[in-house]
Amino acid sequence: MSTLNKNTVTETVQQVADGSLSCATIVNHYTQAIAQTEKELGAWKYFDPNSAKSQATQLDATNQSGFPIGSLHGIPVGVKDIFDTADFPTCYGSPIYADHQPKKDSRTIEKLKEAGVVIMGKTETTEFAYLHPSRTINPHNHEYSPGGSSSGSAAAVAAGHVPLAIGSQTGGSVIRPASFCGVYGFKPSRGLMSRRGVLQTSETLDHVGVFANHLEDIAVLADALIGYDSEDSATSTTPKPELLNGYQKHISNPPSIVWIDMPYSDRYTSDANDQFEKLLHSLDGNIQRIKAPSNFEQLLACHKTIYDYEIIRCLGAEISNHWESISETAKSVFETAKGRTESDYREAIETRSTAQQWFAEFFNEYDAILTPSAVSEAPLLSERTTGDAVCCVTWTLCGLPCVNLPLLSGKNDLPIGVQMVGAHNKDDSLMHSAKYLLQQMTPRT
Amino acid sequence: MSTLNKNTVTETVQQVADGSLSCATIVNHYTQAIAQTEKELGAWKYFDPNSAKSQATQLDATNQSGFPIGSLHGIPVGVKDIFDTADFPTCYGSPIYADHQPKKDSRTIEKLKEAGVVIMGKTETTEFAYLHPSRTINPHNHEYSPGGSSSGSAAAVAAGHVPLAIGSQTGGSVIRPASFCGVYGFKPSRGLMSRRGVLQTSETLDHVGVFANHLEDIAVLADALIGYDSEDSATSTTPKPELLNGYQKHISNPPSIVWIDMPYSDRYTSDANDQFEKLLHSLDGNIQRIKAPSNFEQLLACHKTIYDYEIIRCLGAEISNHWESISETAKSVFETAKGRTESDYREAIETRSTAQQWFAEFFNEYDAILTPSAVSEAPLLSERTTGDAVCCVTWTLCGLPCVNLPLLSGKNDLPIGVQMVGAHNKDDSLMHSAKYLLQQMTPRT
Repeated sequence: MSTLNKNTVTETVQQVADGSLSCATIVNHYTQAIAQTEKELGAWKYFDPNSAKSQATQLDATNQSGFPIGSLHGIPVGVKDIFDTADFPTCYGSPIYADHQPKKDSRTIEKLKEAGVVIMGKTETTEFAYLHPSRTINPHNHEYSPGGSSSGSAAAVAAGHVPLAIGSQTGGSVIRPASFCGVYGFKPSRGLMSRRGVLQTSETLDHVGVFANHLEDIAVLADALIGYDSEDSATSTTPKPELLNGYQKHISNPPSIVWIDMPYSDRYTSDANDQFEKLLHSLDGNIQRIKAPSNFEQLLACHKTIYDYEIIRCLGAEISNHWESISETAKSVFETAKGRTESDYREAIETRSTAQQWFAEFFNEYDAILTPSAVSEAPLLSERTTGDAVCCVTWTLCGLPCVNLPLLSGKNDLPIGVQMVGAHNKDDSLMHSAKYLLQQMTPRT
Repeated sequence: MSTLNKNTVTETVQQVADGSLSCATIVNHYTQAIAQTEKELGAWKYFDPNSAKSQATQLDATNQSGFPIGSLHGIPVGVKDIFDTADFPTCYGSPIYADHQPKKDSRTIEKLKEAGVVIMGKTETTEFAYLHPSRTINPHNHEYSPGGSSSGSAAAVAAGHVPLAIGSQTGGSVIRPASFCGVYGFKPSRGLMSRRGVLQTSETLDHVGVFANHLEDIAVLADALIGYDSEDSATSTTPKPELLNGYQKHISNPPSIVWIDMPYSDRYTSDANDQFEKLLHSLDGNIQRIKAPSNFEQLLACHKTIYDYEIIRCLGAEISNHWESISETAKSVFETAKGRTESDYREAIETRSTAQQWFAEFFNEYDAILTPSAVSEAPLLSERTTGDAVCCVTWTLCGLPCVNLPLLSGKNDLPIGVQMVGAHNKDDSLMHSAKYLLQQMTPRT
């Protein structure tokens, strides 16, 4: 049984396929893991062992009858509680939706089911996938935050509760918690994964994302979720990258990786900065280093303007009808957000578009950007923050694919992630570059 | 260029991927092929060479910029004119819809675009994919019918106008024209391919289907089209068969293939019957032969009852408002169909359900049924019929996957197809059995 925690999901599914492992056994293993540490961790909003068991029984029957099995057959998955589920309540991290039961599955859940997963339940999220922390703690040290907003998903994977989890990112809500919890995290190119049935906080910035313990698992899970959806206008009918192909492709020439000295690098803590410099030194000769153009700094403000402008419109009904049930953290930002004018917003959208064109040119020269996932290790819970998202927002704004690699650690022996960013819609190439980097390094385990 | 007609689509896409062949060159080749013979053949309702060229240019640009390419990148596809297309008119084979322009693509078109195909245009269909013949003729002999209702799709593939085409089957509308035109045809298990945006004539019996010149191409095209769609309640979120995997899987043990002496075998023409008997003789030892249970015969009537009852409801608006624009062929059937009572219908649905359970048991013992695709070669055009669908309706009724293999020919040197039928949702296993059979035979070329 102990191999379950070490194996890739593809290795586990292979065991299911050849009959040496049942889905019931897998689910039992992870159910026990949840029972052992969930009380302290607080990663789950909703977990029903009976539902998990019954899904596993069904998946075993399918397999035993020789019917097709999915690429993730029998693999338990945790889903951030902003994704609608017809089989479980969905509360969006808010007391306003304490008893909310969606009628339909989100597109993500539909795709997960087609891949044959076991939906283990719903993971804790910050309120509306925004700033107000959830009750989840960091599995590596219980005094620290797991990050946000996909707090429960990152913590559940890090704690061995599930091998895979689903999150979302509008600022830095996948890459940051992945960095703090020491797991792989991935946010795809905007438009690859449909957001139908996911709480909308920003049409422009919302992305579905994923967590896993292996880079290969990220690729397999992402491939299962990518696809056109006529109900999410960000998606398109163009051919899609296949991430596992990118991951598996033989490395004939080293990818061209570039480190950018970002305008916010003064926010990196000194221990984090030391780790990044050491990493760059160790990669000397395999990586270029450039300074960010001076206008990079405005992209942070641009992201904030768009997020502010869109979130108060997306949450208009909650703000109008349930103001008293919204956290003080959110209220104070919403008050400021109301001051954003349409002309501020239009200008920000224009700036974003220019930046996207700049990156399209930039990625003709480079395969991937190497950059910190977060400015530091996880913050203390007592600071009542999920941490600084500054290392993520530029890429989220431009819809570029990003992956967190859990390679470093800081002064408190907590994880620090390294982020790689790729060209839009070349997520397969990003996987290829990330695998190359891993081969140069010894991952933190 | 001549290799285009011989190569599988995967071989062609590989040439596109490695830069040795452009999508523009492919489209140019097939555009010329269409120009050469379309006037006599009448396979196309709508074909726009400029649209095809512009799609190819876009696909070449995608490839040259290193963006992901699809499994069918640059492959021209013809689409039966009952599938809604936002870029082309869609007339459902009826003068009532002479100027009809849908706003949205059908799910099939969305999926084709994601696979990177060039939509060459719309192929001729019989009126409402039903009985009244289209103007299309048989490419092997211009005195003969191509079959129906997917007349244009089967003829276009047979004539080398396109390597792939899309059809549909409610009775025998894919397998029969594939048999008459001497191409591979495939109707998947009910529920694997969404029918959103396809003219509905029977919720219970309508299936999407495909045509190609190679069995491998059938597998690749089908894989691109299979998937859950929340807007077609016949589809489900269970894991899906991967047909190319089934096709490519190493054959360690010969599949268990069974010939069933069907209750309608007296309808086989003597030349067709001789060919089937020879085939069985040549496979002696590799195939079992059994007699159909006596209650098989009622399945033909059961299919007819369901089709009658549902088609007049699906076409209720056309029947009420445009009776004068409906063919005499259809009118006479619709008149009888109106006599079907709800209790006849319920009984037929019940019978179907019993038959489905019977086949589920049956396929625990056998991998595939071998059976004729049609009772004869193509009929003469002068007979004003698209041919007898009796060899197809049992399998269509039960939603079982069927494939036409163009292996035999009859007294007029016209093609006669061999049909293989598999277990529901084991379409990958059916591909595997079909490949095995091909290896035992020399295909008609």
